[in-house]
Amino acid sequence: MKAAIITVGDEILIGQITDTNSAWLGQKLTELGISVVCKLSVGDVHNDITEGLAQCLDKADLVLMTGGLGPTKDDITKKALADFLGTDLYFHQPTFDRIKAMFEKLGRKMSDHHHDQCLMPTGAEILRNPMGTAPGMLMKYNGRRIISMPGVPFEMKSIMEQEVLPVLARESETVILHRTLLTCGAGETMIENSISDIVSHFPDYLSIAYLPAIGQVRLRLTAKGTDETELKAGLDEYTRKIAARIPELVYGYDESSLEQELQKICTENRLTVATAESCTGGNVAASIVSVPGSSAYFKGAIIAYANEVKSNILGVSADTLREHGAVSEQTVTEMVIGTLKALGADVAVAVSGIAGPDGGSTEKPVGTVWICAGNRDKQITYLLKSGKDRKLNIEAATVYSLIMLRRFILEQIS
Amino acid sequence: MKAAIITVGDEILIGQITDTNSAWLGQKLTELGISVVCKLSVGDVHNDITEGLAQCLDKADLVLMTGGLGPTKDDITKKALADFLGTDLYFHQPTFDRIKAMFEKLGRKMSDHHHDQCLMPTGAEILRNPMGTAPGMLMKYNGRRIISMPGVPFEMKSIMEQEVLPVLARESETVILHRTLLTCGAGETMIENSISDIVSHFPDYLSIAYLPAIGQVRLRLTAKGTDETELKAGLDEYTRKIAARIPELVYGYDESSLEQELQKICTENRLTVATAESCTGGNVAASIVSVPGSSAYFKGAIIAYANEVKSNILGVSADTLREHGAVSEQTVTEMVIGTLKALGADVAVAVSGIAGPDGGSTEKPVGTVWICAGNRDKQITYLLKSGKDRKLNIEAATVYSLIMLRRFILEQIS
Repeated sequence: MKAAIITVGDEILIGQITDTNSAWLGQKLTELGISVVCKLSVGDVHNDITEGLAQCLDKADLVLMTGGLGPTKDDITKKALADFLGTDLYFHQPTFDRIKAMFEKLGRKMSDHHHDQCLMPTGAEILRNPMGTAPGMLMKYNGRRIISMPGVPFEMKSIMEQEVLPVLARESETVILHRTLLTCGAGETMIENSISDIVSHFPDYLSIAYLPAIGQVRLRLTAKGTDETELKAGLDEYTRKIAARIPELVYGYDESSLEQELQKICTENRLTVATAESCTGGNVAASIVSVPGSSAYFKGAIIAYANEVKSNILGVSADTLREHGAVSEQTVTEMVIGTLKALGADVAVAVSGIAGPDGGSTEKPVGTVWICAGNRDKQITYLLKSGKDRKLNIEAATVYSLIMLRRFILEQIS
Repeated sequence: MKAAIITVGDEILIGQITDTNSAWLGQKLTELGISVVCKLSVGDVHNDITEGLAQCLDKADLVLMTGGLGPTKDDITKKALADFLGTDLYFHQPTFDRIKAMFEKLGRKMSDHHHDQCLMPTGAEILRNPMGTAPGMLMKYNGRRIISMPGVPFEMKSIMEQEVLPVLARESETVILHRTLLTCGAGETMIENSISDIVSHFPDYLSIAYLPAIGQVRLRLTAKGTDETELKAGLDEYTRKIAARIPELVYGYDESSLEQELQKICTENRLTVATAESCTGGNVAASIVSVPGSSAYFKGAIIAYANEVKSNILGVSADTLREHGAVSEQTVTEMVIGTLKALGADVAVAVSGIAGPDGGSTEKPVGTVWICAGNRDKQITYLLKSGKDRKLNIEAATVYSLIMLRRFILEQIS
């Protein structure tokens, strides 16, 4: 089965919001072995919606649409859908009753716009939306299917998970399997050269893609065919071969993350962790806390943005700050010691850098970041030379802080 | 002028990466008054690229493409472009010389893949990429233009800003102006009802879109026409009318953010700020620090994820934690007092909640978040009832912490 995704809304075209719905939909369809052949974004324009539908239905058996069903006036998706299908809109009483009950429970009043949300193309099957007012709709067109859902991500996801994906799972045929090796600490080209002889011996059904991000490269292996057992065996074999070639770089697989792997290592080894942050402003701690269950090993953090906090709470000496500066190997080392004392953790990472755009000098340009990971007895440090962009510098400093923390812990427990 | 955007890459279709390039391009084109008529994502498939080009060139005078120019094997964009244009690829020596010099400077070795990066469709104008190996390309097709750029965001942005946008700026004709009112603390429907009579009197050239996010709704006004003076006057007039109707909700305009407005208020009033965070794990502090210049008013934060950190560093009393729990009005109030003492700030915000998925109870379900903002003399608190999703709960707790901090400061200085 082939699928296409259409996202509707002027706000997407003018870039006022980033379309995350289609990435999520792409993942879910791919997991079911459904090929996504294209993604299209169109504005709140009647003809662009109907033409987009025609183009996508030309290539795909299934078109998933999101957006354009909200209660305010800028939405015309349903009218375009009805016209495309050659039908009318009718008032769907059960949806009205559901919205009414929902609002009564919340003690809110329905507006006229909610009345419009109950208009549906004749013949559409209504898909329950337990998270919001606008339901989803399933429509048939020349033996193909169109599913329209609201653009609010958690409403769309709820409809997909409860009403759409279970049905698609039962129907899918071609087998597409993925396996992703997560690496950190080396660039795309270096990795490609290290494993080129393995890749050149891939069987025909296997392919690889390199997905670089700051400090990390994901290697996505795809096996596509009909014999699931064969595909799975081949995927496993070549995943093992690649991992054995670059063991120091591979930190995990598939949907995992540095934070998740760190949590696994720490809880397995009963180590507690804390962070001390300057330029990242809490971003390392927030990354750690983004993983459910982080309270099992994460104690907390001192965000020492002002130098007086580095001195008063973390005990960085006045001499160190004066002689070496806040962005120095000495300062981050003292920050690790200080945060271990203050928060009572086993291991800590500290980071201090010049995020920019101001604050740089010839000796320490914007993007200079010192990182230290360690315990009371031993510390390792790293000088990151990032770039000029504040956001990217904070992101890079965060990723490398996690990499250093992981490296230190692995050294300790090995 | 009308434009279309094509992003190329299997990783976009299967949702392994979220396409942020097209949002950025949409913003930049819109600012120049160029209408973006559609965005299309296709895989690394020759025919999908050429068909996508044909469809987009049917609707647009300019097609911007990103992706598919990397040094690894999964990229075939240039071959598809050459075939579409009915031409060949040739070896572009200046690009080779540039990459060679770049690598020599870095002390790295060029690989064969970099040789492929020097192949260009005959007739293409080469656009300088100072940030990476693959240059951009400008091609003509039946009086229309195709621009192909690498998918790495900072490389693409650099080519756009230096080589493409200045040219487009000189050419653009139709005037499209936007003005966005940023609101926090009320829902889309409530706002729409409050201003419906103003909106119903909009002149024909003016339209409004409601862009909801957690705790915030952006109201985007668009004026489209030819007489820039008239459009600007109308946009200003109706922006003022709406802002005057809901003054307590409007916190800023256009590309600003809660964090930026907070920084403005604090620096103007010479107030220093600190945060004390449990469930958000540093995310409030990281949001504050994301704004350049935050060191002028942000002291730091105590991330008290473990209860012992709440007691030892923030001085939350054992009685409070025992009687009311870590997620309580009493605890967040003591956290504010404690962090003001520890970090020496004028104002602080504290947040403690149950992010989930575990840790909830009947009395305090997952999503329960207490927030307190205040100084040594006065504190205000807020009970946020968020949902079941950990990520959304952390995001909501972060936004409402900033909202409460802003509210407290505005009350104090008024």
